[in-house]
Amino acid sequence: MKATKYMEAKMIKGGGVTSAQGFQAAGVACGIKPRGEKDMALIVSDVPAGAAATFTTNLVKAAPVKVSMRHMGNGKIRGVVINAGCANACTGVGGIADAKAMVEHAAKELGTKPREWLVCSTGRIGNRLPMPQVRKGIEKAAAKLGAKNGAEAAKAIMTTDTRRKEFAMRFKVDGRKVTIGGMAKGAGMIHPNMATMLCVITTDASIDRAALKSCVDDAVEQSFNRISVDGDTSTNDTVIVLANGLSGTNLLKSYHPQFDLFKKTLTHVMRKLARMIVEDGEGITRVVDVVIKGAANAQEAKLAALAVAKSELIKTSWTGGDPNWGRIMAALGYSGARVREEMVEIFYDGLLAVVNGQPSKTPLVKLRKLVRKPKFTITIHLHSGMGEYSILTTDLTEEYVRINKGE
Amino acid sequence: MKATKYMEAKMIKGGGVTSAQGFQAAGVACGIKPRGEKDMALIVSDVPAGAAATFTTNLVKAAPVKVSMRHMGNGKIRGVVINAGCANACTGVGGIADAKAMVEHAAKELGTKPREWLVCSTGRIGNRLPMPQVRKGIEKAAAKLGAKNGAEAAKAIMTTDTRRKEFAMRFKVDGRKVTIGGMAKGAGMIHPNMATMLCVITTDASIDRAALKSCVDDAVEQSFNRISVDGDTSTNDTVIVLANGLSGTNLLKSYHPQFDLFKKTLTHVMRKLARMIVEDGEGITRVVDVVIKGAANAQEAKLAALAVAKSELIKTSWTGGDPNWGRIMAALGYSGARVREEMVEIFYDGLLAVVNGQPSKTPLVKLRKLVRKPKFTITIHLHSGMGEYSILTTDLTEEYVRINKGE
Repeated sequence: MKATKYMEAKMIKGGGVTSAQGFQAAGVACGIKPRGEKDMALIVSDVPAGAAATFTTNLVKAAPVKVSMRHMGNGKIRGVVINAGCANACTGVGGIADAKAMVEHAAKELGTKPREWLVCSTGRIGNRLPMPQVRKGIEKAAAKLGAKNGAEAAKAIMTTDTRRKEFAMRFKVDGRKVTIGGMAKGAGMIHPNMATMLCVITTDASIDRAALKSCVDDAVEQSFNRISVDGDTSTNDTVIVLANGLSGTNLLKSYHPQFDLFKKTLTHVMRKLARMIVEDGEGITRVVDVVIKGAANAQEAKLAALAVAKSELIKTSWTGGDPNWGRIMAALGYSGARVREEMVEIFYDGLLAVVNGQPSKTPLVKLRKLVRKPKFTITIHLHSGMGEYSILTTDLTEEYVRINKGE
Repeated sequence: MKATKYMEAKMIKGGGVTSAQGFQAAGVACGIKPRGEKDMALIVSDVPAGAAATFTTNLVKAAPVKVSMRHMGNGKIRGVVINAGCANACTGVGGIADAKAMVEHAAKELGTKPREWLVCSTGRIGNRLPMPQVRKGIEKAAAKLGAKNGAEAAKAIMTTDTRRKEFAMRFKVDGRKVTIGGMAKGAGMIHPNMATMLCVITTDASIDRAALKSCVDDAVEQSFNRISVDGDTSTNDTVIVLANGLSGTNLLKSYHPQFDLFKKTLTHVMRKLARMIVEDGEGITRVVDVVIKGAANAQEAKLAALAVAKSELIKTSWTGGDPNWGRIMAALGYSGARVREEMVEIFYDGLLAVVNGQPSKTPLVKLRKLVRKPKFTITIHLHSGMGEYSILTTDLTEEYVRINKGE
């Protein structure tokens, strides 16, 4: 039933942050990144848009996060200015001034008010932005704004990402087409609450502010808060959703018959983007769904899932294609969840590996084959209650170390 | 004052688990490890010894841990039998039977009672012990017992360790020599509460059982519970201290004038062994003391220290010799400790890198030089209270991944 209903939304091939009506974007190079790659993006709505956002839970917040959080209280939003190559974090009052200058400059270029702008930065922590370049970049991007430039913007926000991340879907509300599309960047510092990730989603849906906020919070919880690459939560994580209403439908409120469809599609778009972030994690060779079932409660299921998803020993065993479930048993044992060793079952893609806390009769060679696949699911049943949780994680490779040890 | 008093104990060059009077050991190869290395050790006291032990906090406990925990309630202990190459964990009732058979066989060989024996195993989880080999190994070791074989035993308990870990000290109580010496193994799965580590310490001190237990608990908290290599807590961690009283001193109780000296020396021996474990961590190239000062309280200081000591991003930056303090700021921010960004100071070996949450004037080249050293100390002052904590950790290298991805 759920699946059928869900099919009402269709993926837009090549879709992204400018798929919804009335959004324009640009992505240009302005010299923040050392090698001349694109590093400045603008996303602009033709009309003021309703906005909802989620920011990093890290107590050390980057300057753009602080500025955007404040601007979220201003009501409607016209645009988002984003730079890559410098996080503008741990930069003190000077950094705040720089983030403010970014929104002021973008607003001036587009003839809007600074308070209608949000700002994001991503890159190394502790460096100040090269403001002359940033200003030039904003001017250059403003001159290049277009409704087909989503991909350019998605490219400009990349750091160690190897490919851009875009996804969009379309469905009908009140007989009119509604589109939700977005872009994201990820790569390292990826962990719940949230990842070193930025995500901007645009929609032409007409939706009540409070309803949008609740949809976004739920969708983030089901997507970006359930991925882990390296267990580090960054200072800059931001998810922004802009809804400009240009689809011309009635206002979506919680009692609207298509409200659920909107929410499901938004969640799906975020889950797709979240999965793209994990699949493009730094140096990874495996993407693993870790599913906990039968924990004493949901909180303990989460503890168990996080312990498995974060264990360096488990992640490196996957790298080697080693179904080393013993390390999973050890991680469960220290996770903080109530675990009774003799009750534990572990499945690799549905294949029983551990039963009653001991090796099953499944031949090791079969499990090895599975763990050599680029994607698989590990399902762990604790048989202690009804608590469930799942998280998407990766292996840990020599390449991850190589990428992150450099300056 | 403390330092002076402490100098009363002297290191014994080449000392180890047989340095104290009345202890014999042996280390032999019996075919558990695939390549014929030593894999079976015995430690025996000539007379029944008082014993104190600390075991893994992991809820998934290996069979030998369960058996040893039970035997600790039996009173005096005569010996410890240890195998490497197989953890005998997640092996069900069969594994328990095997661990019991090990103590029975060792007791029979030495003409003592099984209940006077402890047992440890270390190696891969999920495999049963090859019992015929284990029995032969115990017989072989029993035949080779000697008061100069501490090094052999220390070699036999190694897994991915690259060198054996032994340390001993001597001091005077009531005019008589008292010795504390021990051996340990570590390498991977190293994290507080505790590491994949085994440690056996022997002393000829004459000490009250309750006093010994409290000394051991405190010393473990100051040593093995303050090291981290990869953040994984193992199923087999065990620290055993045997005190046989053969030094002939009066009984050490808490009001004895030399009681403090005993306790300090025991702590020092454990800290030395703990540091050896970290220095021999899998693939490591840096040993880093992380010191938190000025946290709101001790608990938050611990949270902050653990977040820094466990961060993959911080550890890989050390590997590259990169003083990437921005990643430390991020880790502090998500640690769970109350952190006010603008109050944070970070020092590398006393050199100020961050002040008021922003880069100091110290040239980056100076910090780089420090982070390229094999050992350094990072001191973080949160300026929020009096909470302090320190932990010893390492970097994270490609070599760690290589070691742990293999089967």
